[in-house]
Amino acid sequence: MSDAKQIVLAQRPQGMPQPSDFRVESVAMPKPEYGQALVRVIYLSIDPYMRGRISGAVSYAKGVDPGDVMVGGCVGQVVEAKGSSLKPGDFVEGPMGWRSHVVLPANLLRKLDPALAPISTANGVLGMPGMTAYFALLDVCQPRAGDTVVVSAASGAVGQVVGQIAKIGGCRVVGIAGGVRKCAFVRDELGFDAAVDYKVEKDLGAALKAAAPNGVDIYFDNVGGAIHDTVMTQIRLNARIVVCGTISTYNNKPGEEDVGPRQLRRLLVNRARIQGFLVWDYNHRYPEGLARIAAWVKEGRIKYREDFVDGLEKAPDALVGVLEGRNFGKMNVRVSADPTR
Amino acid sequence: MSDAKQIVLAQRPQGMPQPSDFRVESVAMPKPEYGQALVRVIYLSIDPYMRGRISGAVSYAKGVDPGDVMVGGCVGQVVEAKGSSLKPGDFVEGPMGWRSHVVLPANLLRKLDPALAPISTANGVLGMPGMTAYFALLDVCQPRAGDTVVVSAASGAVGQVVGQIAKIGGCRVVGIAGGVRKCAFVRDELGFDAAVDYKVEKDLGAALKAAAPNGVDIYFDNVGGAIHDTVMTQIRLNARIVVCGTISTYNNKPGEEDVGPRQLRRLLVNRARIQGFLVWDYNHRYPEGLARIAAWVKEGRIKYREDFVDGLEKAPDALVGVLEGRNFGKMNVRVSADPTR
Repeated sequence: MSDAKQIVLAQRPQGMPQPSDFRVESVAMPKPEYGQALVRVIYLSIDPYMRGRISGAVSYAKGVDPGDVMVGGCVGQVVEAKGSSLKPGDFVEGPMGWRSHVVLPANLLRKLDPALAPISTANGVLGMPGMTAYFALLDVCQPRAGDTVVVSAASGAVGQVVGQIAKIGGCRVVGIAGGVRKCAFVRDELGFDAAVDYKVEKDLGAALKAAAPNGVDIYFDNVGGAIHDTVMTQIRLNARIVVCGTISTYNNKPGEEDVGPRQLRRLLVNRARIQGFLVWDYNHRYPEGLARIAAWVKEGRIKYREDFVDGLEKAPDALVGVLEGRNFGKMNVRVSADPTR
Repeated sequence: MSDAKQIVLAQRPQGMPQPSDFRVESVAMPKPEYGQALVRVIYLSIDPYMRGRISGAVSYAKGVDPGDVMVGGCVGQVVEAKGSSLKPGDFVEGPMGWRSHVVLPANLLRKLDPALAPISTANGVLGMPGMTAYFALLDVCQPRAGDTVVVSAASGAVGQVVGQIAKIGGCRVVGIAGGVRKCAFVRDELGFDAAVDYKVEKDLGAALKAAAPNGVDIYFDNVGGAIHDTVMTQIRLNARIVVCGTISTYNNKPGEEDVGPRQLRRLLVNRARIQGFLVWDYNHRYPEGLARIAAWVKEGRIKYREDFVDGLEKAPDALVGVLEGRNFGKMNVRVSADPTR
């Protein structure tokens, strides 16, 4: 069998990562032991959190050091398996990393049903981003019909699902996104009530006020930074803010402080709360979330948009694109052919 | 009958209030109508929130405009009552304001039992500050035995109760206070595990780390500002921060932004939350809170310290003292004689 390919971190990026911060390596094709499976990677998921992993800062997960293979969730197909229920040809999702092939313990692989939905969705609406949207919105923010829900990075993998679940729940939904296409997408294709283009609005606060005239009950924050500051000026009594991502800070220098208005007085006056979220805490409830979102997808009540590039070697550029907002929908690298399409 | 005295706001203070921002007035003794009571004020409660009321900024309550009588909670004795169950001689607590005498609807007055505890405690441990401590700690922060609880303004009316309830619940309690006397009080008299003197510690973070080596599970924040920033650097997984006061900002200029580190990344990594609190939201549960704290006081498990000055005309200076941290314990102005002492 030919060699496997993998991408390692060559050096820690300063500020925005560059493709030259990564390096493609060829390694011998790995072999599965008992309880393991050899998987051919088909779709590598590219997500903003990856910037945090290569920063060297302490976070919720072990980081990627120079020389390490980049981490990432993927969809693939089993080539060979020993001592588990997995069979060659099975489609699976799991933490395969930036690789063409990988050997993993079978218990880290979730078997997919290609009849349920395209297998790529296991990286998106029926995967980590969809679960983030589902649990962070419903569990942490507890939306009620009539609430105004604002979501940033609204056309992204998480944001698009957040807005549609909120609509199903009878909320007024305002998306914040960058560019005319993304705004039109969430408003006209996904059914958000309004979209605010942060790249063109000179007065973001006024634009948000026009889109959410009664104020903000829930803010689903994927970006942090100045957009967070602006939304916070318009929160209502008992507002709930969930912090799922802080993409605005991901390219800050190590130790660089993220400074802005302290929200303490505003939280007190409005008896509001800001809560951090990590989807790992809901691993045990994935079956519930996946079943409900799959049903909504099947009913046509949740739509999704994916964005693809071809070839593992494009992964570094795809990550830069996600950090710059160049992707449009859930970003995937097609590492090898998808036999279901 | 002689005239009544009252104190009105003469002009909005710039920065720290001065006694000259207030004015004493004499007015005709008011007379109760049906359903009302005339009350002689005995103890006027002086609290940090009063600075917000005179600032002109929009907040959770209508402000005090120049010419208005200052608002405030008080304990008094009924002089005359019509059309209610109140009788002359009854002790009552209610929103009497900075006055020697006041007429209020009987339903705004809570009758006190002087056999239960000294009547002044209805302004403190058995009043609004005690209820703030009780509900903000137990309901919002949900302490568990073994949690490390940090409370700022630890020797104040709220802080001293917070720490003792947390101790009853089996927590490790660290108080932050200003000055040797206050720190010794919370540690040696109230039984906190440690006290940190923010006025003398050059490296507050290091001092806090020594006092709370395992990190902070709960931060009961009465002050905001730089102390908040420091405590936040040491929060643990699933930390809960309740914002009950922001005294550090109360003398900011109108419109002056309160700027500091955004806590969004830290909240995400730790899946922590910051929540604003206002005790009014718990009015319906006061009977529960009062009964439990009264029992703890009776058992000697909750101690309290009060601070008194004599004479209504001292109220402005007492407020400045509270804002500067000059008081030591719950601040009261003794407006007239307490016949129970």
